[in-house]
Amino acid sequence: MRILFANPNTTVAVTERIAAVARAAASPGTQIVAVTGKTGVPYIATRAEAVIGAREALELLAEHADGCDAAVVAAFADPGVGGARELLSIPVIGMAEAAMLTACMLGRRFSIVTFATAMGPWYRECVDYNGLAGRLASIRCVSGGFRDIESVQEEKADALVEACRLAVEQDEADVVILGGAPLAGLAGKVAERVPVPLVDGVAAAVRQAEVLASLRPVKATAGTFRRPDAKAITGVPGALEGLFSRR
Amino acid sequence: MRILFANPNTTVAVTERIAAVARAAASPGTQIVAVTGKTGVPYIATRAEAVIGAREALELLAEHADGCDAAVVAAFADPGVGGARELLSIPVIGMAEAAMLTACMLGRRFSIVTFATAMGPWYRECVDYNGLAGRLASIRCVSGGFRDIESVQEEKADALVEACRLAVEQDEADVVILGGAPLAGLAGKVAERVPVPLVDGVAAAVRQAEVLASLRPVKATAGTFRRPDAKAITGVPGALEGLFSRR
Amino acid sequence: MRILFANPNTTVAVTERIAAVARAAASPGTQIVAVTGKTGVPYIATRAEAVIGAREALELLAEHADGCDAAVVAAFADPGVGGARELLSIPVIGMAEAAMLTACMLGRRFSIVTFATAMGPWYRECVDYNGLAGRLASIRCVSGGFRDIESVQEEKADALVEACRLAVEQDEADVVILGGAPLAGLAGKVAERVPVPLVDGVAAAVRQAEVLASLRPVKATAGTFRRPDAKAITGVPGALEGLFSRR
Amino acid sequence: MRILFANPNTTVAVTERIAAVARAAASPGTQIVAVTGKTGVPYIATRAEAVIGAREALELLAEHADGCDAAVVAAFADPGVGGARELLSIPVIGMAEAAMLTACMLGRRFSIVTFATAMGPWYRECVDYNGLAGRLASIRCVSGGFRDIESVQEEKADALVEACRLAVEQDEADVVILGGAPLAGLAGKVAERVPVPLVDGVAAAVRQAEVLASLRPVKATAGTFRRPDAKAITGVPGALEGLFSRR
Amino acid sequence: MRILFANPNTTVAVTERIAAVARAAASPGTQIVAVTGKTGVPYIATRAEAVIGAREALELLAEHADGCDAAVVAAFADPGVGGARELLSIPVIGMAEAAMLTACMLGRRFSIVTFATAMGPWYRECVDYNGLAGRLASIRCVSGGFRDIESVQEEKADALVEACRLAVEQDEADVVILGGAPLAGLAGKVAERVPVPLVDGVAAAVRQAEVLASLRPVKATAGTFRRPDAKAITGVPGALEGLFSRR
Amino acid sequence: MRILFANPNTTVAVTERIAAVARAAASPGTQIVAVTGKTGVPYIATRAEAVIGAREALELLAEHADGCDAAVVAAFADPGVGGARELLSIPVIGMAEAAMLTACMLGRRFSIVTFATAMGPWYRECVDYNGLAGRLASIRCVSGGFRDIESVQEEKADALVEACRLAVEQDEADVVILGGAPLAGLAGKVAERVPVPLVDGVAAAVRQAEVLASLRPVKATAGTFRRPDAKAITGVPGALEGLFSRR
Repeated sequence: MRILFANPNTTVAVTERIAAVARAAASPGTQIVAVTGKTGVPYIATRAEAVIGAREALELLAEHADGCDAAVVAAFADPGVGGARELLSIPVIGMAEAAMLTACMLGRRFSIVTFATAMGPWYRECVDYNGLAGRLASIRCVSGGFRDIESVQEEKADALVEACRLAVEQDEADVVILGGAPLAGLAGKVAERVPVPLVDGVAAAVRQAEVLASLRPVKATAGTFRRPDAKAITGVPGALEGLFSRR
Repeated sequence: MRILFANPNTTVAVTERIAAVARAAASPGTQIVAVTGKTGVPYIATRAEAVIGAREALELLAEHADGCDAAVVAAFADPGVGGARELLSIPVIGMAEAAMLTACMLGRRFSIVTFATAMGPWYRECVDYNGLAGRLASIRCVSGGFRDIESVQEEKADALVEACRLAVEQDEADVVILGGAPLAGLAGKVAERVPVPLVDGVAAAVRQAEVLASLRPVKATAGTFRRPDAKAITGVPGALEGLFSRR
Repeated sequence: MRILFANPNTTVAVTERIAAVARAAASPGTQIVAVTGKTGVPYIATRAEAVIGAREALELLAEHADGCDAAVVAAFADPGVGGARELLSIPVIGMAEAAMLTACMLGRRFSIVTFATAMGPWYRECVDYNGLAGRLASIRCVSGGFRDIESVQEEKADALVEACRLAVEQDEADVVILGGAPLAGLAGKVAERVPVPLVDGVAAAVRQAEVLASLRPVKATAGTFRRPDAKAITGVPGALEGLFSRR
Repeated sequence: MRILFANPNTTVAVTERIAAVARAAASPGTQIVAVTGKTGVPYIATRAEAVIGAREALELLAEHADGCDAAVVAAFADPGVGGARELLSIPVIGMAEAAMLTACMLGRRFSIVTFATAMGPWYRECVDYNGLAGRLASIRCVSGGFRDIESVQEEKADALVEACRLAVEQDEADVVILGGAPLAGLAGKVAERVPVPLVDGVAAAVRQAEVLASLRPVKATAGTFRRPDAKAITGVPGALEGLFSRR
Repeated sequence: MRILFANPNTTVAVTERIAAVARAAASPGTQIVAVTGKTGVPYIATRAEAVIGAREALELLAEHADGCDAAVVAAFADPGVGGARELLSIPVIGMAEAAMLTACMLGRRFSIVTFATAMGPWYRECVDYNGLAGRLASIRCVSGGFRDIESVQEEKADALVEACRLAVEQDEADVVILGGAPLAGLAGKVAERVPVPLVDGVAAAVRQAEVLASLRPVKATAGTFRRPDAKAITGVPGALEGLFSRR
Repeated sequence: MRILFANPNTTVAVTERIAAVARAAASPGTQIVAVTGKTGVPYIATRAEAVIGAREALELLAEHADGCDAAVVAAFADPGVGGARELLSIPVIGMAEAAMLTACMLGRRFSIVTFATAMGPWYRECVDYNGLAGRLASIRCVSGGFRDIESVQEEKADALVEACRLAVEQDEADVVILGGAPLAGLAGKVAERVPVPLVDGVAAAVRQAEVLASLRPVKATAGTFRRPDAKAITGVPGALEGLFSRR
């Protein structure tokens, strides 16, 4: 089985971290293909940046989905995932979506903990979009800047663990998601320091992508995710143009 | 006062129709600037097309907002409006948002009637995003293809009026929105044929843009629409790059 | 254009303040007619007082709406606005409704800040009635008594600004409404002291009344705001009796 | 025990029917005091009429509550009940509220069936106000006019039974409320013709009033139904004036 | 009238307390039958214990309902009440349900105060199950262990009163329910120390059971609480087996 | 990896079908342990039967969970799953829960289609319990009796496919779940006859159980699913008694 991780950000080191965590978390025999945005920002933190990232995600998926069994939009809050689900024939999931639905099987209410306050509003919109506001305990963002997106999880580990604990004690979370691709792999390292299950977005995503691929769902020809009618489009790269025009 | 209408679609004739309706609906002295997407699709109908349109909307706003007092994302369902509201200093509203909030002052529940079934799911997500699902009576899409997006409102007028009537009789709508920029101006022509108030998206948008501009709101420096921190971005045109990098 | 402000309270000085703020906020050429309740309380603060004010509002509207293009129930929380919308042929809006829907175009979540704790429960019911609880960040009431309803906005200005700031910092408001007719005009004076947009209820109401009047909506003959069937009624003044009996 | 039924409508025959049904449904030893609105409409069917009825309800309660142990606003949809609950020292309930909460103990979802289409919107607002929309299966209004409000329950009995059956079969109601004071007593007569429990508003109200009186709740001195501060009020009859001014 | 209280816990002293409070709260002439679980736990505090208690409740009701006019599942959070309502011909209510619906007639928002933190999650699920989350102010659990379930209300009285006060001051409760059968009777003793109405679960339950019995509702033959089709079942005692198999 | 399927019904043939479908759907190397209820009903269809099944589920899990990596409550609507999640150290999921959360990754709204009308109300409560009512398109139950629970999926295949199509066409489902353990395996056989993805409850459950097991979540020591304090319990078999008493 082959799972595509499309990181719509431009930081190659984050893609590499995602790929490594995904490989470690995947079933035996699953191959991980991880690609990085060619344009955009180092990491998405706002609605405006997510607009840019959503289109980049579609481009990456258009170029690399061939031969894959499922795809993951590998930025927490899932830019472009709805559009991708329309266009592609294989299952597509977002990292936040995978993490949240997995968390729902481990507790009634989940919190999302992340490393920068800028992300709160965008994450909250993602929770609402998934209809899961009733299962959300809180979103807690560690305040203060950080030196380097590539090593932010090491730099902020203690503060993140403290935020997880507060989510449990004050917000009544049964389970905590560490949100944001730059935090991939941290859950495994700090699990013993938090009194409830932690969910790693990348690990959840690779496993859920496997689930969807294994179910071999038909591509919808009805409903809201049916493949759209072919449509002329201009100004997008060839692979993406092909998805829209169905040539 | 100067209001910018950014049509993220590529059909110039639709932009011209929007501009004409906006001029007719505006207060005396209001100037309308209307611009058309340079790349993308003739009209947005799906989530995937909205991803493309959202970025186009940001580009158009970045290039043309200078000297304007407020801006409108002139595609129903408002691609990119949240991001635009973060980036710009002037008020930005979406055409669907303006129409829905105006409708809320004319009745308890509104329906949206439009000309193509493909649009239903995307419109529904827009209603949910605005937290107005509790005020929605229905979304009714006229089925069957159409010849030309530029004249779809004339071609489908009778079917649209019938859909409005059904929205009132069967779905308990107090007010009906004619959704989709290609329907701009139709509400005024068919108002007498529908037993409840009709809302024209373009007319509502230009008037609401005037309201916001007249209130002269400060640009938020806190809250979720505060201006984002400057950030390096690659692969976007200069004006948009400037908004992100704050240069 | 002629906009009627019906203040269902008995304090003429508050009506005068409303009128002055409305004139300053209106479009050129808009005329403001402002009338004061003949019976009732100096200012409405509870559900019971709102029952009295609702009927007073209907009486004032019945007597003064002739020749006006739109009307405003000029007490925050909008006593009687639903009934007025049934009875009158011109658009009718409430001050709270206008402020809240305007605020929705400036941010995802709004707070309402006001000058007396008694008002919280009644305001909350108004938010719920409008189906906007999902967009409410908080209602913050400045505690402690005040000397004079006519000058409460000057007396409490600092405390109100502080409450606005707390709404942003602690309740995650993107925009703040200064609620209550006695606070009319304050938003403009303190805008620079609050880091998000402030909405003045009277300014929003006059502008939204203009929007509705400019759209020239048909009077509904179906739906829940259709004109009610004529009905005999006793014990109400002639103008109001005429609206019910349709004579 | 003494229970006051305040019918804010002007039809004495309806009050008499209410009183008779209440007496038959009450516990042994409960006395029923039933009073009729002196001004207003023969029966309330719209929001505007409810505004008039709400004030009439307050007047009736102010005049007649002395010596009673609990009071009922005896018009379905409960005009003025919130205000009355603030002002009075004894428990006050609305007929719709009592019927709906009783219905919740007999099934998951209830329908309300009534005799005139005009009432639907007002009833729906009452359901929403009580936070019970999630338990509502439907509101079904028998269409067509009727000859006489005093005998509408006999005239429309078959149509009402049919509406009850449709509520069960098509709307998935577990229990049906016959709404509207003019239908008092009908539930008992047609119970065998409907396959789920029927709730009579008057019977539920008198029994629930007894429950509240028997619990002897303290008058709240905090919370949103605490007795309001004394306030000068003009233009209302002496008894009501006394409740506001606390003299 | 004869009301059955089925306590699905094994503590006879709690059943005796329930019976005494029910007798004191009942109407003249109402007889109370109170029975105790033969197997299970001394008091239910978690979801797992509620699973055990739900079946015990069905067994007790099957054995003792004959000759009773209504039945109460006498453990707060109402284990098994939905199933019992299907199986039995007489009305069945839960103690939490009765308390919450009664509280709704005394205020807009209620809090539940109880004596052990373990109970919070189970109570919360009960509120949600009843569709009353919108009317819940808070659930407050007194922390710390207790010596004896039989006398926990005396031991914790001061802490419970303090929790009630905090529910009013900090959570905006209009009314407070003392939750948990071991607290039966406490509300009456401490009513004067809390500034809003207190609801005693047992008193509310006995009175609401009387209401339902007095309405003589038909046993549903349609809807979701219709009597289930007869079904073979193994491994349950004879009386319960008879309810399922309808012999 | 070893996954336990606990079928709380007494029909061994259904357990065997579950086991066969689970084995076919599982990852290579996953072992399936499937056990059948010793007491109870042939298949659970009502709330009352679910009460019996919930306790049976706990007993089966207590006896067989040792040595397993995750467990599934193998009856659609998940009797006892919350209690099991408290008591056990390994992850526990319900079949309905697994199917619904999987469906959420394949579309915005799902329908549940099943083979008997009796099941609708119980399934609906399960959807609500999981906080997923906003994602539910409909529950469609094929009407009419059936000959044999063991072969109901063959007997009703055409009617079920038709119900799936109606769910898509009339209820706007993006994805359909075939609910009820007796339908295990049917989705794979009829997938080509339905225009949207179908989800098989057993296949989803085994794969989701693998996901949870692979994440190796810590057993919560805080939050609402923390292991309960040890408690004496009487009248339950030894293994279950051990889980409660922690011996």
